[in-house]
Amino acid sequence: MDDRELWRELGQQLRVDAVRASARAGSGHPTSSMSAADLAAVLLAAHFRYDFDDPRSPANDRIVFSKGHASPLVYGLFRAAGVLGEEEFGTYRQLGSRLEGHPTPVLPWVDVATGSLGQGLPIGVGMAIAGKRLDRLPFRVWVICGDSEMAEGSMWEAAEHAAYYELDNVTAIVDVNRLGQRGETMHGWDLSSYSKRLEAFGWHTIEIDGHDVEQIDAAYREAESTSGRPTAVVARTIKGKGYSKVEDQNGWHGKAIAEEAIAELGGMRNIKVDVPKPERAEPHRFETGAAQWPSYEPGSEVSTRKAYGEALAALGSERRDVVALDGEVSNSTFAEIFAKAHPERFFEMFIAEQQMVAAAVGMQVLGWKPFCSTFAAFLSRAYDFVRMAAVSRATLMLCGSHAGVSIGEDGPSQMGLEDLAEFRAVHGSTVLYPSDGNQTTALVRAMADLEGISYLRTTRGDTPVVYGADETFPVGGSRTVRDGDDVAIVAAGITLHEALRAAETLAEEGIGARVIDCYSVKPIDAETMAALRMPILTVEDHWAEGGLGDAVLSALAESGVETRVVKLAVREMPHSGKPAQLLAAAGIDAEHIVDAARKLVREGVAAS
Amino acid sequence: MDDRELWRELGQQLRVDAVRASARAGSGHPTSSMSAADLAAVLLAAHFRYDFDDPRSPANDRIVFSKGHASPLVYGLFRAAGVLGEEEFGTYRQLGSRLEGHPTPVLPWVDVATGSLGQGLPIGVGMAIAGKRLDRLPFRVWVICGDSEMAEGSMWEAAEHAAYYELDNVTAIVDVNRLGQRGETMHGWDLSSYSKRLEAFGWHTIEIDGHDVEQIDAAYREAESTSGRPTAVVARTIKGKGYSKVEDQNGWHGKAIAEEAIAELGGMRNIKVDVPKPERAEPHRFETGAAQWPSYEPGSEVSTRKAYGEALAALGSERRDVVALDGEVSNSTFAEIFAKAHPERFFEMFIAEQQMVAAAVGMQVLGWKPFCSTFAAFLSRAYDFVRMAAVSRATLMLCGSHAGVSIGEDGPSQMGLEDLAEFRAVHGSTVLYPSDGNQTTALVRAMADLEGISYLRTTRGDTPVVYGADETFPVGGSRTVRDGDDVAIVAAGITLHEALRAAETLAEEGIGARVIDCYSVKPIDAETMAALRMPILTVEDHWAEGGLGDAVLSALAESGVETRVVKLAVREMPHSGKPAQLLAAAGIDAEHIVDAARKLVREGVAAS
Repeated sequence: MDDRELWRELGQQLRVDAVRASARAGSGHPTSSMSAADLAAVLLAAHFRYDFDDPRSPANDRIVFSKGHASPLVYGLFRAAGVLGEEEFGTYRQLGSRLEGHPTPVLPWVDVATGSLGQGLPIGVGMAIAGKRLDRLPFRVWVICGDSEMAEGSMWEAAEHAAYYELDNVTAIVDVNRLGQRGETMHGWDLSSYSKRLEAFGWHTIEIDGHDVEQIDAAYREAESTSGRPTAVVARTIKGKGYSKVEDQNGWHGKAIAEEAIAELGGMRNIKVDVPKPERAEPHRFETGAAQWPSYEPGSEVSTRKAYGEALAALGSERRDVVALDGEVSNSTFAEIFAKAHPERFFEMFIAEQQMVAAAVGMQVLGWKPFCSTFAAFLSRAYDFVRMAAVSRATLMLCGSHAGVSIGEDGPSQMGLEDLAEFRAVHGSTVLYPSDGNQTTALVRAMADLEGISYLRTTRGDTPVVYGADETFPVGGSRTVRDGDDVAIVAAGITLHEALRAAETLAEEGIGARVIDCYSVKPIDAETMAALRMPILTVEDHWAEGGLGDAVLSALAESGVETRVVKLAVREMPHSGKPAQLLAAAGIDAEHIVDAARKLVREGVAAS
Repeated sequence: MDDRELWRELGQQLRVDAVRASARAGSGHPTSSMSAADLAAVLLAAHFRYDFDDPRSPANDRIVFSKGHASPLVYGLFRAAGVLGEEEFGTYRQLGSRLEGHPTPVLPWVDVATGSLGQGLPIGVGMAIAGKRLDRLPFRVWVICGDSEMAEGSMWEAAEHAAYYELDNVTAIVDVNRLGQRGETMHGWDLSSYSKRLEAFGWHTIEIDGHDVEQIDAAYREAESTSGRPTAVVARTIKGKGYSKVEDQNGWHGKAIAEEAIAELGGMRNIKVDVPKPERAEPHRFETGAAQWPSYEPGSEVSTRKAYGEALAALGSERRDVVALDGEVSNSTFAEIFAKAHPERFFEMFIAEQQMVAAAVGMQVLGWKPFCSTFAAFLSRAYDFVRMAAVSRATLMLCGSHAGVSIGEDGPSQMGLEDLAEFRAVHGSTVLYPSDGNQTTALVRAMADLEGISYLRTTRGDTPVVYGADETFPVGGSRTVRDGDDVAIVAAGITLHEALRAAETLAEEGIGARVIDCYSVKPIDAETMAALRMPILTVEDHWAEGGLGDAVLSALAESGVETRVVKLAVREMPHSGKPAQLLAAAGIDAEHIVDAARKLVREGVAAS
């Protein structure tokens, strides 16, 4: 069998396998797999370099299935590569199988979960940036994209960044099968719609017949030899190709095909492809040096956002694997301090938060430790990417600055007021909210060793330094900053300082307020909360839903403790004003804490 | 003064006013306002048609300040239009002022809040779609965009949809001042970067000197006379234009300028522009007819997602103002039933969730009642738009289908598991989660009369019809579906059915379980929850954070009630499998409810 014949046969095998897998499962997306089968076959058989025995090898090429619903194709490729046996192949979509409905890293050859469209290409761009600028290795990133997902803005953020970073190591293979889930895409088979857009963004593009293996091979060769810019292979394909009953038919998206299709496809095949391994290579190692950890004098003032930047820069000196990305606000988040200290490991992602998080997901696949920063409010732009990063079992560090009403005059559009709720509801996440500079340093250091998605919330304004520079703040812990037995005030970040002021006033009235700094919102220090034998007041610069107060209530419930809890939180839409005015208007400043604490204590006295 | 001289003077006035406003406030973005001052001056003085006494007039042109940080420019325009007095103009960024740091609809001439970049153009596209397809009026939508925000993918979703819908009634004015917040943009002053991209997306583009009033006027005329496609005026401008100390300088973003700049700008001016009113016109009215409200037989089965589609179609028959948008999954969300019944009021937004929500925000400005649907998981893509819609005081209806692990084989990427947390944490939101078809109908009807952002969560699989078709389900209420005095099971949606099955089993064991259908997650029926004098078990097909359980805990806390509460929720990353298997694996099926309820009751007995 010559190469071309092999590629054609392999394409048919992938189609047959897509039919088989989905027929057995009774669901799945065979037609979306069949359109891309030839594109995938030629890639596997003639261009991909990968050590299936060592999927983490830094020299490996990477494939990202941006159109993740074509999972039968993904698993068919692994069967063809000889790493997935027939028995396991038959478990597609069954509970306990590694062959999930959409690919996840439960399989060692899948780097990231896909299935929320428009994410694979931005993630691939992150891998390719890592290849060029961090690892400095010649691996290639191949991204198989659907045509429908080109409607996602995130694909154009990826297009922009791939060109900006001159990523000639990434190839987008656009499977233009014309049909989306419920009908035709905006552009149907007009290949030039895609290629002219991508060219305008700075890409090299090649239009081909996606079922002509010679054209496919030539296009991949051209992509490999194009330098200075990324290449898109825009391929005209037929959805359901190879089975006349469904070819180019609407109404067959996400539907299993009966096994009768196998005969028309020429029957089952068992071609095994011996994918060549890449030459062994070691990734670039950045120099490290002595970290100058920042240290703030108790009683002085510094913003936690500034402390974040200083700590991150120090972390970058100590650890060669730490990188930073920012969404064009590094002079606000203070990621610029890292950027100045470690310019080669800093990536300006401009105002493209989705691409920023996606790039981080791609970089962590290669073993880097990415810290992403922007305003807390604007991280909500990338929430679907963070959600999917959890499905990808990714480890990344997010920092949201300008939390809450305390930012002041810029007004509600710039205030992060839902971020605690947002990131608590991410699987396996860690949510941290420091109140002073030294605590920020300790938590930033801790983040670099956490698995999963960790989030640090920082405050715009300067706040007093409460802790010494050598104090420790374990994730999952809390700090009792002031003792008292009448009422516990649980605060974090900006509200800790309000709580401390309130406790002073309360003490003058003879009310002993214990002040707890709940800097670890998730995991929360349930033990300390459960041991409080007094009414609790929670205070947060965040909406009343899903934040610190709810976290405390949940911890108490899980501990089986029934205590009186009152939540102070932001409940009305804030306006512009001075930070102190806005904390007062929201009812979360010292004065309101005093009022609420006094009421709680009196209530308790009245009840006893 | 001839026109050109007036425009130039008005431009200088706007610059002076930007300096004055921000100097007095001590913050703000004067330099970003000064770059766009001439663009705005010519627009106000020579092209804009608007009745400032009747801002809601359907015939009015619309201006959207996509670069919302240029708020001094916005307020300067209103002063020039004679609707903002000098005294109020001096209150910029003060607490209580309508002149917030970024524009909000607290001012009657501001339709939508901006300040999260990349949102104004997509919202403007929604207004323009309404103008073309719904209102059918000749008003124009002018969107003043920053160059930095062109990095947001949402701008390219807007570009795509504006061309697709042939919106020659929308003009994007791109203020290319070269400088972002912390340095140069990707493209600097390379105007062609923007125009070639927009042209590739199907736009007409005009490159001009953004400080040459004649060129500006000619470009706007050309935009007004271009038909069949949108126009972008790509204008080269100078950040801080007019004050030599800051012109084209880095480091002046978001910083007040001292009043000394006013002299160089030629001093204060008091030009008043008499903006012509548009010709009075009435918007198109769609025909209504008798609504055929769906009715499901108790005991039969239907999915709540299907019931959503049927109810929405009936609502569309009854109400002429209801429109629907969907993200290319209308055959999954069942918005397709509405699309078939009311094709003129259905908008396919393809896989562009940000643009979908933004279009809805734009349409509701014109008085339409937009219902947006996609998978619950994918609404997370548009979270920043929903957050900002709340700042815009927008009224829109969102429906997220395929909630939770109960979707089955498609796996975690497709499961909405954070949506309750996400939408509870939106200011003023309503969060609804029906368990059967008739309840869905009632809640969809109710949504059309709610203010603010309402969210309906639907289930993929068929579930038994529990309620009669004539039953009522007030927002903020709950239903006690089964009585019992030993333990209360609070469930919603899919888990209600598991709870009912569990209650049967518990009854056989002599345990009386009260089953409460908490279909209104926000506002929650705090009264009913607080009146339960028994331990409570909450059960939700959602992560343990921020969802139904936390809502119940919060309601109890706010009511001052201390009760034992146990939350059953999804705590491990789900896999693919059959719905029943996955409910069991997550510990939220009837069997796990029975175990947990039994334990709770025994605990209570042991304690008493």
